[in-house]
Amino acid sequence: MATNPTVMLYGPGRAHIEDTREPEITHPTDAIVRIKYIGVCGSDVHFWNHGGINGKYVSESQPLSMGHEASGTVHAVGSAVTHLKPGDNVAIEPGQPCRSCVRCKEGLYNLCPDMKFAACPPDNPGCLAKYFKIPADFCYKLPPGVSLQEGVLAEPLAVAAHGVRMVGIKPGDSVVVFGSGTIGLLCGAVAKLYGAKRVVAVDVLEHKLDFARSFNNSATFKPDMNLTPEENAARIVAENDLGLGADAVIEASGAETSIVTAVHVLRPGGSFVQTGLGKPVINFPIVTMSEKELHMHGSFRYNAGDYQVALDVLEAGTIPLERLRTKTFDFEHATDAWEETKQGRGIKNMIRGYGYGDPTRAAHL
Amino acid sequence: MATNPTVMLYGPGRAHIEDTREPEITHPTDAIVRIKYIGVCGSDVHFWNHGGINGKYVSESQPLSMGHEASGTVHAVGSAVTHLKPGDNVAIEPGQPCRSCVRCKEGLYNLCPDMKFAACPPDNPGCLAKYFKIPADFCYKLPPGVSLQEGVLAEPLAVAAHGVRMVGIKPGDSVVVFGSGTIGLLCGAVAKLYGAKRVVAVDVLEHKLDFARSFNNSATFKPDMNLTPEENAARIVAENDLGLGADAVIEASGAETSIVTAVHVLRPGGSFVQTGLGKPVINFPIVTMSEKELHMHGSFRYNAGDYQVALDVLEAGTIPLERLRTKTFDFEHATDAWEETKQGRGIKNMIRGYGYGDPTRAAHL
Amino acid sequence: MATNPTVMLYGPGRAHIEDTREPEITHPTDAIVRIKYIGVCGSDVHFWNHGGINGKYVSESQPLSMGHEASGTVHAVGSAVTHLKPGDNVAIEPGQPCRSCVRCKEGLYNLCPDMKFAACPPDNPGCLAKYFKIPADFCYKLPPGVSLQEGVLAEPLAVAAHGVRMVGIKPGDSVVVFGSGTIGLLCGAVAKLYGAKRVVAVDVLEHKLDFARSFNNSATFKPDMNLTPEENAARIVAENDLGLGADAVIEASGAETSIVTAVHVLRPGGSFVQTGLGKPVINFPIVTMSEKELHMHGSFRYNAGDYQVALDVLEAGTIPLERLRTKTFDFEHATDAWEETKQGRGIKNMIRGYGYGDPTRAAHL
Amino acid sequence: MATNPTVMLYGPGRAHIEDTREPEITHPTDAIVRIKYIGVCGSDVHFWNHGGINGKYVSESQPLSMGHEASGTVHAVGSAVTHLKPGDNVAIEPGQPCRSCVRCKEGLYNLCPDMKFAACPPDNPGCLAKYFKIPADFCYKLPPGVSLQEGVLAEPLAVAAHGVRMVGIKPGDSVVVFGSGTIGLLCGAVAKLYGAKRVVAVDVLEHKLDFARSFNNSATFKPDMNLTPEENAARIVAENDLGLGADAVIEASGAETSIVTAVHVLRPGGSFVQTGLGKPVINFPIVTMSEKELHMHGSFRYNAGDYQVALDVLEAGTIPLERLRTKTFDFEHATDAWEETKQGRGIKNMIRGYGYGDPTRAAHL
Repeated sequence: MATNPTVMLYGPGRAHIEDTREPEITHPTDAIVRIKYIGVCGSDVHFWNHGGINGKYVSESQPLSMGHEASGTVHAVGSAVTHLKPGDNVAIEPGQPCRSCVRCKEGLYNLCPDMKFAACPPDNPGCLAKYFKIPADFCYKLPPGVSLQEGVLAEPLAVAAHGVRMVGIKPGDSVVVFGSGTIGLLCGAVAKLYGAKRVVAVDVLEHKLDFARSFNNSATFKPDMNLTPEENAARIVAENDLGLGADAVIEASGAETSIVTAVHVLRPGGSFVQTGLGKPVINFPIVTMSEKELHMHGSFRYNAGDYQVALDVLEAGTIPLERLRTKTFDFEHATDAWEETKQGRGIKNMIRGYGYGDPTRAAHL
Repeated sequence: MATNPTVMLYGPGRAHIEDTREPEITHPTDAIVRIKYIGVCGSDVHFWNHGGINGKYVSESQPLSMGHEASGTVHAVGSAVTHLKPGDNVAIEPGQPCRSCVRCKEGLYNLCPDMKFAACPPDNPGCLAKYFKIPADFCYKLPPGVSLQEGVLAEPLAVAAHGVRMVGIKPGDSVVVFGSGTIGLLCGAVAKLYGAKRVVAVDVLEHKLDFARSFNNSATFKPDMNLTPEENAARIVAENDLGLGADAVIEASGAETSIVTAVHVLRPGGSFVQTGLGKPVINFPIVTMSEKELHMHGSFRYNAGDYQVALDVLEAGTIPLERLRTKTFDFEHATDAWEETKQGRGIKNMIRGYGYGDPTRAAHL
Repeated sequence: MATNPTVMLYGPGRAHIEDTREPEITHPTDAIVRIKYIGVCGSDVHFWNHGGINGKYVSESQPLSMGHEASGTVHAVGSAVTHLKPGDNVAIEPGQPCRSCVRCKEGLYNLCPDMKFAACPPDNPGCLAKYFKIPADFCYKLPPGVSLQEGVLAEPLAVAAHGVRMVGIKPGDSVVVFGSGTIGLLCGAVAKLYGAKRVVAVDVLEHKLDFARSFNNSATFKPDMNLTPEENAARIVAENDLGLGADAVIEASGAETSIVTAVHVLRPGGSFVQTGLGKPVINFPIVTMSEKELHMHGSFRYNAGDYQVALDVLEAGTIPLERLRTKTFDFEHATDAWEETKQGRGIKNMIRGYGYGDPTRAAHL
Repeated sequence: MATNPTVMLYGPGRAHIEDTREPEITHPTDAIVRIKYIGVCGSDVHFWNHGGINGKYVSESQPLSMGHEASGTVHAVGSAVTHLKPGDNVAIEPGQPCRSCVRCKEGLYNLCPDMKFAACPPDNPGCLAKYFKIPADFCYKLPPGVSLQEGVLAEPLAVAAHGVRMVGIKPGDSVVVFGSGTIGLLCGAVAKLYGAKRVVAVDVLEHKLDFARSFNNSATFKPDMNLTPEENAARIVAENDLGLGADAVIEASGAETSIVTAVHVLRPGGSFVQTGLGKPVINFPIVTMSEKELHMHGSFRYNAGDYQVALDVLEAGTIPLERLRTKTFDFEHATDAWEETKQGRGIKNMIRGYGYGDPTRAAHL
């Protein structure tokens, strides 16, 4: 009988389920989670397409389990863990920083050079397994009334919270969000929680803007491809009464045109955060950025406080998060979930944990 | 007899001295300064070459006086001015914000959309005249022991102070400064005042690095043009023992290669400020910026507190500023000063105010 | 016929209406407002009781018009004013800073030593007059749908916004607000706009807590006078599940016991703002403050951005502000409004502008 | 033969040396330091007088080793430690936070509720022992040219760096430092590193001011006890040309009079940090604090970056730290060092580590 069925990636388009060693409590602050839901993220698709990212790749000789957005039930905890007990429903923050370096100690643990992040080659196991081990302080008990299906969204919500914090949204601010995928939508929603007065969603696809409108109650703008970025920026400003420009931009598309439009749509002294990743090198209007004295920030994953914002959002229930979930696949069909997402179908596709799908299939391992 | 001899620019390469109306005190907080020294800045050369910048140009029908780095002696003050009296030596902050807009009120008056900045077309007079009028609170009395020749450097020092403040240098920080012209050199010096532990000056010209070494006591680096920006960045880090990278970059060259190298030389979470202007659009490694969670800031002129830092630097006398002054031209030869600077000769060329040069020439107007 | 009927204070308990010179536009950026509503503030009562405050007093020989919370209709504007026209409904920000000092230039104009604040002795006229003159940029056009009765609340809302900004409330924070008068109630409401997750209102009067509960949907706590501040603090923490303590305190009571309780109710590293004024000197637990590394801030009036937050609150209409308005007095009965407030009756009493009350009475001047 | 001779405190005035179990490497990131110098701090004297502090006391049945300012030589390191090796000279940061709580993760580990701080009852061993175990990342290798005698000052320097950081000193600031003991002197010196333009040392003892003058090159002020705090504040401002008041105060005396004077000496919007501890409850001018919109901060020990500032100071060698060291006692005479400090003799008294004193005495255990 399988102890820890795991979806392993061996290379681009090559994955299969195999049994791995069940993790054990080795430190008094460990927790082991029985995984119930795993979300599919753009980076999963990138791995499925390319076998890795940024010089870090799986291989036939060093395959790796995938998945870093996950919720589940506590299976076991170490002797020093007091805030969790077996049976608790939790969301997982899937990275383990060293806690000792300068960045960790100053509160920027997302920038830890020794971070062990789930599903990161060569050897950090992912969450697409029956069991996943993590330090207990990176397991967050779900608030009352929050389901495990919702809990899996804590991870992308934390990404959004981090991005919003990078630009420092405050009441009264106008914010333009480029890209209306999961992260863009969540950034717009979280920006409103931080007090944004106006949120304008920008996307090239009409149906995404329709969704944004109803999801976020945001204004929308579809760039005219016959216009320059500067002209589209001027239209965004005019249509939304943004005065000298937007106070902040959240760039969640990664598209060069969006980034350039963003520089032009900001008011002097405005702030920009790059949360989406696209072409590594773009044409960038540096002089405009400098003369407007803009503030541009990268945004990498999440750190202290971001998961708490995510859990508060889940608990408050004011964002219609259930509308983001499109299709849920059985564990045994994880690669179908990646394919579906690769085809651009749906917003947030999910995978059931091992043993939670159709029981006839779950037994086949 | 001329009342207010003024150097007027009529277009690229076309300037001559003419008499203009002497300014008068019209508001109780006005001050009029008898100009003694005017510094030549890269933007003056740009005007001399192109007749303007960023869509703002002089013309035969609407010529304009040039010059925005200036010191002089108070000639007259309005009735409400108490901190100055005729005869005082002052440095001039050459921009007059509206003081009423949101930016002005929140302390970012350099971003005021109604700023009246000296020598800015179409109609803001510059300092290359016998007399210059300015609100008295933008005139700074020179501290004891600071000469008018030194005082003219308050303006570029304020630019440097503003840039350094944008990246938030603090004791212990390592800073790489790209470009060793006046602004780069002053930024390096001011960064040390803010506590920078290591300053590395980067330039492609050996003699500029020699100067930086002796001016700032900074380390230096000459990029190898056969290497990629990433490789040059790695060398800067290795040679200067910067660990995971520099804490901050001050980009004062405007060169694309420098900007890209800067992104690679920074540690995760590092800060970047763009103070120099070059090509308006560059190839930029946006994904690296985002994944390292860098903080990039534009820097535009100066605002509250920057001139005070500049005056403190002048008063302290710890930076060998006199070494920056290369050649001083008579008022009547202002265009020679621009030509000299255009040819890349010298660091900071200066122009004497009207009537302070060779007396036989000064009389010719 | 009276040109500018004005309520003048001559000393403690001595006030009468007299005619003063109607203000005139003397500067192109001036605005003159026909006052419609004036709010009564605790400081008005203090003036009514004592004839002044902090060493600044009116006298028989130098009486002064009162009132600094006001809304009205634009009567006239200077030639340079473009954002307002006669007839516009506006809220007034009643202080005029010098705009030239270091504090003004750095964005802290509320700390300007030359501030001319309405109704501040010896000679800054207040708003309890038919007409009030103010620089036009301190007049805020009311958003569509906001009445002049509501607009008069912009001032206390700006006070609340400033206090909330001083402690930096962000989503997820727990905030304890001491004092449930107008400012305390508005601070609680504004803290929620900034994302506060939990707001606990503390007051010694049961009916005030009842009001707070329904106004803000906040939790409430009535201190047990038989317990020490430390014990009451422990109860607040326990009853509201605040863990190691509250993230922030807004002290709007001015009571010594509240301030001491606040120090104990905060978590290590928490923030405190003092917005209410009470006894000038109190017994204060400085060692606890220091060892918990608390951050304590004063809060004085308002500056850049605070009125905009206030207007946004008015426009959004999500806070039941109309419930704060208790009783409205005719201009001729202004002193009755002060008496009513002095007796602790009502939350926010108001006064109608001259000529807007009972027409038979309005004519008597 | 003794394995780990240790100075144990059993109660007020009751201490003796006994042998304790030598610490062992139990975790791959541990380090064990052979202690060479221990500094005497005010809190050591408090323990010597009272047997503890703040409700945490030693007892006959639960004695504790003292000492938290220490330097020494690495004796052993765990297998994962790469930045240290046996024989390295190090300064010790003597507290071990949990690294998992919210405060630790956000970079405020000094506020960790589970901090294990050296010599803190009931059971955190101090440094007055032959060997001391600490996580290796809290051991800082001394820079070249820095002796172990100097290294023991890293701890008070880190306290000073933390206090200075709390008030955010920047170039041009004027700073008044109350109290000229070790911490006050070091705060003044570190404030200068952060760019303070003027530092004024305030103390009631003439000889301390003499020392401050020569140590820091600071201005000095001796309060006139016949004047009120407000009057003394006015004198400090006038004598030092501080305009509307000081930009910042570092309160390192703990005296009520100093704290009140500090509130009056600050300019509107100024910052205050409390680093010294005195009477737990004082009379405090809260209304003045609020109306001047002051920013008051506690300061508790040190966190990320503070030790690095301390090491940079030691390496730079620009502060005459050796002048602080007054008398050095043998390990066997540790209590004499406490007595000496209790009598107010000397600035920083030190104790030699076991076995580094007079060899005839060291053998007596």
